[in-house]
Amino acid sequence: MADVNKNVLEEQIKAQGAVVRKLKEEKADAEKISEEVNKLLSLKSLLGLDTKPAKAKGESNKSKENKKQPGDEGPKKFVLKTPKGTRDFAPEQMAIREQVFNKIVACFKRHGAETIDTPVFELKETLTGKYGEDSKLIYDLADQGGELLSLRYDLTVPFARYLAMNKVTNIKRYHIAKVYRRDNPAMNRGRFREFYQCDFDIAGQYDAMLPDTECIKIVVEILSSLDIGDFVVKVNHRKLLDGIFAACGVPDHKFRPICSAVDKLDKTPWEDVRKEMVDEKGLDPNTADKIWEYVQQSGGMDLVERLLKNEILTCEKSAVEGLEDIRLLLSYCEAYGVTNRVSFDLSLARGLDYYTGVIYEAILTGTETAVAAAADEEGSVGVGSVAGGGRYDGLVGMFDSKGRKVPCVGISIGIERLFSIMEAKALASEEKVRTTETEVYVIAAQKGMVEERLKLCKALWDADIKTEQSYKKNTKMLTEFQYCEQNGIPLAIIIGQSEIEAGIVKMKIMASREEREVKRDNMIEEIKKALAPGNSEDTTASICSS
Amino acid sequence: MADVNKNVLEEQIKAQGAVVRKLKEEKADAEKISEEVNKLLSLKSLLGLDTKPAKAKGESNKSKENKKQPGDEGPKKFVLKTPKGTRDFAPEQMAIREQVFNKIVACFKRHGAETIDTPVFELKETLTGKYGEDSKLIYDLADQGGELLSLRYDLTVPFARYLAMNKVTNIKRYHIAKVYRRDNPAMNRGRFREFYQCDFDIAGQYDAMLPDTECIKIVVEILSSLDIGDFVVKVNHRKLLDGIFAACGVPDHKFRPICSAVDKLDKTPWEDVRKEMVDEKGLDPNTADKIWEYVQQSGGMDLVERLLKNEILTCEKSAVEGLEDIRLLLSYCEAYGVTNRVSFDLSLARGLDYYTGVIYEAILTGTETAVAAAADEEGSVGVGSVAGGGRYDGLVGMFDSKGRKVPCVGISIGIERLFSIMEAKALASEEKVRTTETEVYVIAAQKGMVEERLKLCKALWDADIKTEQSYKKNTKMLTEFQYCEQNGIPLAIIIGQSEIEAGIVKMKIMASREEREVKRDNMIEEIKKALAPGNSEDTTASICSS
Repeated sequence: MADVNKNVLEEQIKAQGAVVRKLKEEKADAEKISEEVNKLLSLKSLLGLDTKPAKAKGESNKSKENKKQPGDEGPKKFVLKTPKGTRDFAPEQMAIREQVFNKIVACFKRHGAETIDTPVFELKETLTGKYGEDSKLIYDLADQGGELLSLRYDLTVPFARYLAMNKVTNIKRYHIAKVYRRDNPAMNRGRFREFYQCDFDIAGQYDAMLPDTECIKIVVEILSSLDIGDFVVKVNHRKLLDGIFAACGVPDHKFRPICSAVDKLDKTPWEDVRKEMVDEKGLDPNTADKIWEYVQQSGGMDLVERLLKNEILTCEKSAVEGLEDIRLLLSYCEAYGVTNRVSFDLSLARGLDYYTGVIYEAILTGTETAVAAAADEEGSVGVGSVAGGGRYDGLVGMFDSKGRKVPCVGISIGIERLFSIMEAKALASEEKVRTTETEVYVIAAQKGMVEERLKLCKALWDADIKTEQSYKKNTKMLTEFQYCEQNGIPLAIIIGQSEIEAGIVKMKIMASREEREVKRDNMIEEIKKALAPGNSEDTTASICSS
Repeated sequence: MADVNKNVLEEQIKAQGAVVRKLKEEKADAEKISEEVNKLLSLKSLLGLDTKPAKAKGESNKSKENKKQPGDEGPKKFVLKTPKGTRDFAPEQMAIREQVFNKIVACFKRHGAETIDTPVFELKETLTGKYGEDSKLIYDLADQGGELLSLRYDLTVPFARYLAMNKVTNIKRYHIAKVYRRDNPAMNRGRFREFYQCDFDIAGQYDAMLPDTECIKIVVEILSSLDIGDFVVKVNHRKLLDGIFAACGVPDHKFRPICSAVDKLDKTPWEDVRKEMVDEKGLDPNTADKIWEYVQQSGGMDLVERLLKNEILTCEKSAVEGLEDIRLLLSYCEAYGVTNRVSFDLSLARGLDYYTGVIYEAILTGTETAVAAAADEEGSVGVGSVAGGGRYDGLVGMFDSKGRKVPCVGISIGIERLFSIMEAKALASEEKVRTTETEVYVIAAQKGMVEERLKLCKALWDADIKTEQSYKKNTKMLTEFQYCEQNGIPLAIIIGQSEIEAGIVKMKIMASREEREVKRDNMIEEIKKALAPGNSEDTTASICSS
């Protein structure tokens, strides 16, 4: 490290030390202090590491650490962790994640969707002005020369940027990727700073409610396929909400703040929401109470018809437009056979500013809800919420130099919460999750047979049979069989000198412990037969569920 | 925006303006100037956007822009682009990406590998000191309070951190994810700042060369499955290189710089490499020439035996160890049937510092090489290089507080280059790449039949048949058929009033234009029959390749 850099770093360490001391004096929030202490330690470690070129020999670091007083509560000097609010996925978690993704992607493909991908970061200005108050949660990249960049906050804004930039006016696409929010993590409840979003959107100028209803059908298909108990898809309409606010006497410029107050009703009692409306947002108490009369209501087509007879409400053009959309949507839901899953709910408001029409949110209502509640992924969605979305006809126009609009509607599957539920289910079922798909394990009966094993593996791999063997030259049969059992490998192929001479292999079906001799020439065929789904009862499946 | 923030921003803009003026005066590199101009424009736009809350109405931005003098070469004020060195993936590219991934993952699973995932960013100190000179290419996140973070630079260091943190001592894992390098992008040659890595590694204390050889087998399987022409996997050994350097008289502390010079031999003539060794790195010219005598050699087992008889070389213990490893590796390669793909090449050195044993690099040598050359992904790999890796027994120990080592060996598939090759192939073949998998398109023969269409779609989706329909209420048959042909959809299902009354649908096989009536009750069965692989010649396949 050049001396000048070292000096800069030392200055930074001094300054950071002062920050920590000040926070401690002020008895600041413990988490805040811990964060700043970690930063100080990072800086110190940077200095330490860079001055020792042979870091592999850097044991001196640790021996110093060991001299610390026991009970000294500061974190270790050498911090071995993932960044706050993030996690690694172990193979067991990845196996569950893959299952969930496969079901969801199968549904998107069944509906004829394409997929796209966008960079993990965008120009800072691309994200600016799209998220309202939440903009403070955007991760920025350091200015290292060049463009100012930020990590993506969701997949919707990059999608809109993509459409405008490539002048795409029609697309049905899904996008599964990670997004980043500097939010207060609650990792035990499934809320992370790095998390997957799983979005399906239909862009294009189409006839009313046809794409909008397909989004609901998709949510119903996905949640049903995951077998996570009962759920309901709440629907509402931003135009109807605006109409209600107007009919109740909310001034135009307060529509959005009041909408965002209504959005809290799934987690917060009316008294508190009313307080926010009146005390914080200066709404007339009478107006608030009128809103409450509306937003308590939920139902189906009956509610639509009743509201369409409400003379105060129907004076508002936007309320009528919203109601007519909902009427059409519900009739299409009937044709799609999902009416029993849909609830027209006037309290549904959704947090984001950019919605302009139908909005949705899917909520778990069954016995699994307790699990879901423990997996609250985003502050902005309610307890048990596992999907949400709506229509946003103005967003793409914000990126077009001529303001050309591309109407869009979409849903986002709360996939981190679904992972958590599926993980909890897997844990509860005591079924061992297989993290590999290995079908055959190759074992030598004697020492000195490595190359024979390799030849056997080659033959199996070349026949597309998932095969493993030990990376030890000489192995013990018992240990090898135990490995097969622990890892749910259904078949073992065993060779010894006598088998080689006789041109055979021994095949052991692990579940039944049945062992038989197979001609080497027929080996592939016999293995495929033993692995065939029809035989899975006595091979793979029984082991997998043991 | 608070006034104080606005002032800060205005100050920044002023400062940035000065930077740009200075660069222009200095007639600096055009790309550098353009970068700084973009930054200035980003800052200006931040100011502009934030002061205009209704950005959707922000047409004033653009009208101002239009007042610019024509010929004013500055970029647009409203920059609609992805960050430098990054790109979006359109559906066609995603379809190819998926094909390539599927083949690679199938191979990893065939070899019994698990997968893990790690966060896109790590603590800055986790990456510090791992990449030598290349550390300057690491993306840092802005300091927004909290930990100091950097985007991952590769998947190997996060893997080592994962092993140490979770005390994993044995794992065979693959990891496919994006990594980030602030390198000079050469996007037309496939070199990006955001790009995929696709790594397979075996960690654990095993017997010599067994995991090492399986990595070669995997590379051979993957490259063969992708059908990209001939290739060779070069192998060498860091200990042998060290032994050669010692035998030639290179002083110990110059082993790494000299190794990194040798690494350039795949792109640079010997004269230039020699110059670097002698002039830049202060090597005795005689020593350099002795090295050249060695590193020109390549071959197979014959070369190993010849070198083992070299009395100068075999005085060096590390050379003998390296040669014995290579001998064992080549004998295992024989058993795996990959000898014809492997070349023991003394000029192979690999750039990274952390390798401690066998190193590999796979090079395309066939007629496709020209395409590969156009897809140079990383400066550090040679022309045509599509995979590389080696053994790194010390890296995990750098993360363990007690320095406990976990020996590792792995390969990284140069997947961006493989994408480029496959894209070029797809383009050359003039075959249309399908971006959806839609099997059936539902069409109404008359107006006013939307809900009948929806019911039909529901029945098909529920039977897991990939189905689409128009989002228009009323459609034209001809347009609908055209849509099927353009998108390679093999079947159309048509209903009209008379079909509904008769309890039938019309099924049209798009390839043959054959149209027949099918009972509604048998519809699913008939569709599945028509879509079955045996019938693909006259349905899917023929359309796909048209």
